[in-house]
Amino acid sequence: MNALAALRTLVAATGLSLGAMLLPARCPAAETPTIEQWDVFEIELKGPSEGNPFVDVRFTAAFTNGTKTIEVPGFYDGDGVYRLRFMPEQTGSWRYETRSNRWPLTGKMGSFTVVPATGRNHGPVRVHNTYHFAYADGTPFKPLGTTSYSWAHRTDALEEQTLKTLAGAPFNKLRMAVFPQAHGIKTMPPPRWPFAGTPPHDWDFTRFNPDFFRHLEKRIAQLRELGIECDLILFHPYDDDQDWGFETMDPATDDRYLRYIVARLSAYRNIWWSMGNEYDFLRTKTEADWDRYFQVVQQSDPYGHLRSIHNGRLIYNNTHPWVTHASIQNGMATEDPGRAELYRDVYRKPVVYDELKYEGNHNLRWAQLSGQELVHRFWCCTVAGTYGGHSEYFENPEDLVWLGQGGVLHGESPARLAFLKKILDEAPAGGIDPIDKWQDPRIGGKAGEYYLVYFGRETPKSWPFKLYRDGLVDGMQFRIEVIDAWNMTTSPLEGVFVTKRKDRYFFADKDGRAVALPDKPYQALRIRYVGGAVAGDAQKAPVEP
Amino acid sequence: MNALAALRTLVAATGLSLGAMLLPARCPAAETPTIEQWDVFEIELKGPSEGNPFVDVRFTAAFTNGTKTIEVPGFYDGDGVYRLRFMPEQTGSWRYETRSNRWPLTGKMGSFTVVPATGRNHGPVRVHNTYHFAYADGTPFKPLGTTSYSWAHRTDALEEQTLKTLAGAPFNKLRMAVFPQAHGIKTMPPPRWPFAGTPPHDWDFTRFNPDFFRHLEKRIAQLRELGIECDLILFHPYDDDQDWGFETMDPATDDRYLRYIVARLSAYRNIWWSMGNEYDFLRTKTEADWDRYFQVVQQSDPYGHLRSIHNGRLIYNNTHPWVTHASIQNGMATEDPGRAELYRDVYRKPVVYDELKYEGNHNLRWAQLSGQELVHRFWCCTVAGTYGGHSEYFENPEDLVWLGQGGVLHGESPARLAFLKKILDEAPAGGIDPIDKWQDPRIGGKAGEYYLVYFGRETPKSWPFKLYRDGLVDGMQFRIEVIDAWNMTTSPLEGVFVTKRKDRYFFADKDGRAVALPDKPYQALRIRYVGGAVAGDAQKAPVEP
Repeated sequence: MNALAALRTLVAATGLSLGAMLLPARCPAAETPTIEQWDVFEIELKGPSEGNPFVDVRFTAAFTNGTKTIEVPGFYDGDGVYRLRFMPEQTGSWRYETRSNRWPLTGKMGSFTVVPATGRNHGPVRVHNTYHFAYADGTPFKPLGTTSYSWAHRTDALEEQTLKTLAGAPFNKLRMAVFPQAHGIKTMPPPRWPFAGTPPHDWDFTRFNPDFFRHLEKRIAQLRELGIECDLILFHPYDDDQDWGFETMDPATDDRYLRYIVARLSAYRNIWWSMGNEYDFLRTKTEADWDRYFQVVQQSDPYGHLRSIHNGRLIYNNTHPWVTHASIQNGMATEDPGRAELYRDVYRKPVVYDELKYEGNHNLRWAQLSGQELVHRFWCCTVAGTYGGHSEYFENPEDLVWLGQGGVLHGESPARLAFLKKILDEAPAGGIDPIDKWQDPRIGGKAGEYYLVYFGRETPKSWPFKLYRDGLVDGMQFRIEVIDAWNMTTSPLEGVFVTKRKDRYFFADKDGRAVALPDKPYQALRIRYVGGAVAGDAQKAPVEP
Repeated sequence: MNALAALRTLVAATGLSLGAMLLPARCPAAETPTIEQWDVFEIELKGPSEGNPFVDVRFTAAFTNGTKTIEVPGFYDGDGVYRLRFMPEQTGSWRYETRSNRWPLTGKMGSFTVVPATGRNHGPVRVHNTYHFAYADGTPFKPLGTTSYSWAHRTDALEEQTLKTLAGAPFNKLRMAVFPQAHGIKTMPPPRWPFAGTPPHDWDFTRFNPDFFRHLEKRIAQLRELGIECDLILFHPYDDDQDWGFETMDPATDDRYLRYIVARLSAYRNIWWSMGNEYDFLRTKTEADWDRYFQVVQQSDPYGHLRSIHNGRLIYNNTHPWVTHASIQNGMATEDPGRAELYRDVYRKPVVYDELKYEGNHNLRWAQLSGQELVHRFWCCTVAGTYGGHSEYFENPEDLVWLGQGGVLHGESPARLAFLKKILDEAPAGGIDPIDKWQDPRIGGKAGEYYLVYFGRETPKSWPFKLYRDGLVDGMQFRIEVIDAWNMTTSPLEGVFVTKRKDRYFFADKDGRAVALPDKPYQALRIRYVGGAVAGDAQKAPVEP
């Protein structure tokens, strides 16, 4: 039983507010409950069930640690039960007081203690170093995402299989949708629906279906336990001919839905908000609608989880301050690092190519990539200082496709992406950036310390050791490994390469050594500083384009 | 004598306000002066010269044609002379009345008649069709620009030579700076300075030097007569070690300078405003300063001339509403149409690569392009639906370099750019756009009507006739020419190619014909619809990425 479940059980058993209770498993001697930083502290209260509590009842709480006060929204969970979830971002003592327009829900007070996080708990992911990400505790987060839109709208057996697949896969971020999609609907109808009513479209949009959201939360919590960030898609255009009506709700319904899901889920540290998938294909909405959705979510979420929006053919204005990072669909842009890096400069934010096309054998060209091509694109993204996104679509008589339904993976890419992930994990904590921006986009890294050179479809027989001047002085020693991105081999070269200034722009090896390369595509070099002269001696390069 | 000069002469001779006068050369029988639409109507008045008229005197006029009223700023031109220039955008009768905080300048009224433009006068250039430009009268404007920062700060002989060079060159836009630059300063000191005072830095920043601006205007008017748009750079970081102080003026001085130059020049229809060149290298200013400059110019300019800003390494947020088009420096982005097109989607505005690096033999790598490489980049820009910008830097003992000083051109590219310009002039009026965006960036044009395929550094031996489905049905006939972009040849192929649907995405030739190509780089195809089935029959393609 996890901490959240334990708290819930105690509250249910006693009918008391949490503030008066202990959490024995974690804090046997304390007088207040104890919770880990960035875990979920939940308040459960009984309240009115008459009328329509989803729209009639306001329920919030103010949490304070004495220096900071945070207003947190609660929500109605059906059957007269109200919940409120809080994700403490600071350790120490916290107290709270509820506020509601209903007497049973207002003025409830309590306190609890927040202790440091342990194990896999590093807090929520934030933007770090402009183009990259890190967990709240400073641990680097290097996204290696996949997509399975409807995996959490399937049978328990299939969902458990998906979780098992994820546990053995390299992915640390999963894009998934709140609303089901039409694909696969005939063989796999969704067992639950987000609103009260009867499918396909007899909904009471003023009443949510708590069972639907409890199930969604359970799956998101399981992703959290696997160390996987949930990039949750709030709207999408995939009703197709089902006419469920989730694409055409009125603005008040859209906003109530957003506030409800944010109230339920923002205390889950692994949540990212994706406003829409292929947002521009949802032609029932205007760009002003999307601006508003961002703002509603930003205002409702006390923790500022990451916010993005994913394009079809029309890229949203990701320079808006409410967008934390660019979530791009443009496969062509990831065929070449020189393309992939361009969005960095215009957004000055992390760029995640969540859809660089998918591995598969679909008849539509967005899902026809070979494993080699998908892996190639990930490498292009990597040396360009951006991040790729995986999924796959292998035709299946029952529409059992990873992109839509989860299940198992069939492609050749995941093993190679696991290999890439290991390289990313060993790369500088601050992330990989282009070394010689707008000049040689094949080289990313951290000047003077770490270089990743990716030759892509080129098949050079050798590479003259030559590095751009930033961070370099004469006499620095580097070790080089030749990497085969597809065959997953890493071959260290003998000896060290030693820098010597070659011309205004570059340093070469002092003995003019070059690196021999096999006559094959998808080769890379990892070049790491191992000693000799110190980079700090490097002159500041003059500013020039 | 041009219209402006004639008006000035009459005003000077009679001492009357213009409203009471005729312009006999243009309108012998009328009772009011006559001017062409988008020409300069100038009011000249005598007023106070005591104190500091540049800061003490407000002087404006309201112009109306009965339905539209436009407030126009005037300016002090020294020696007690005040001028106010108006560019009428509608034909018909106009009248005006001046307003000032000085009696001799206020309440002056007049009227005049605006007749349709003639000859080369098509009005100012505007954004057209999202990614392109057109003159106010609807005539397409396809930028083919060059840069000569300081050409108007040189000797009369050199400036006349530059104008002669431009008259024989293909360029229809010239980037030039208001402030001189340090380059070439030793052999060619600027003959005039923008402020009263003594060089190098004993300036009275509250007093402009009218002679400096009159000279600048003369040169800009000469560009106008040549059909060349003046992309005027308002700030730049090229003082170098001269310490003139134009890079470090205080905000009030910056703003007064901007208002003064806009008042003097906004009636010139060929003016574009470039806020800064390599703006981010001007590290005495903040991004908020640049935002403000844009806004000052936008508010002061009654005609909304085009506004842009040119980057060094940090790209300005060109999504701001006050930016009309992106003026980009990024040579790497223009090596490949797949790179070049990416900025279009993020800005949804015209993209002009004003600096794609320069042809030359400089020791710095921003001016080392071969003519072939520069021309190649222009072609990449073209098929990507964007525009390139030329300049050259050939080392010269007297620093006589086109980029800085003008003079004559030495490079191999201008002749090839003239060839490209002819192709652009014959292309669809609405501009060239990517045909199969994010899929095959080598092909630009207008679906169903016109295709330009550019193979760049590739040397294919043949190209199977294959066009993306948009705008196509079976039975459409196309003629094809093979173009050698470097050798400037156009070779029409025999017969016509006839479309037949090949698969979900493409049409091929009905007999499976391919186009034979020479085994050389820099080849292109021009494919034009010549008859057969009608494009309007084409089915609307489903929306998909």
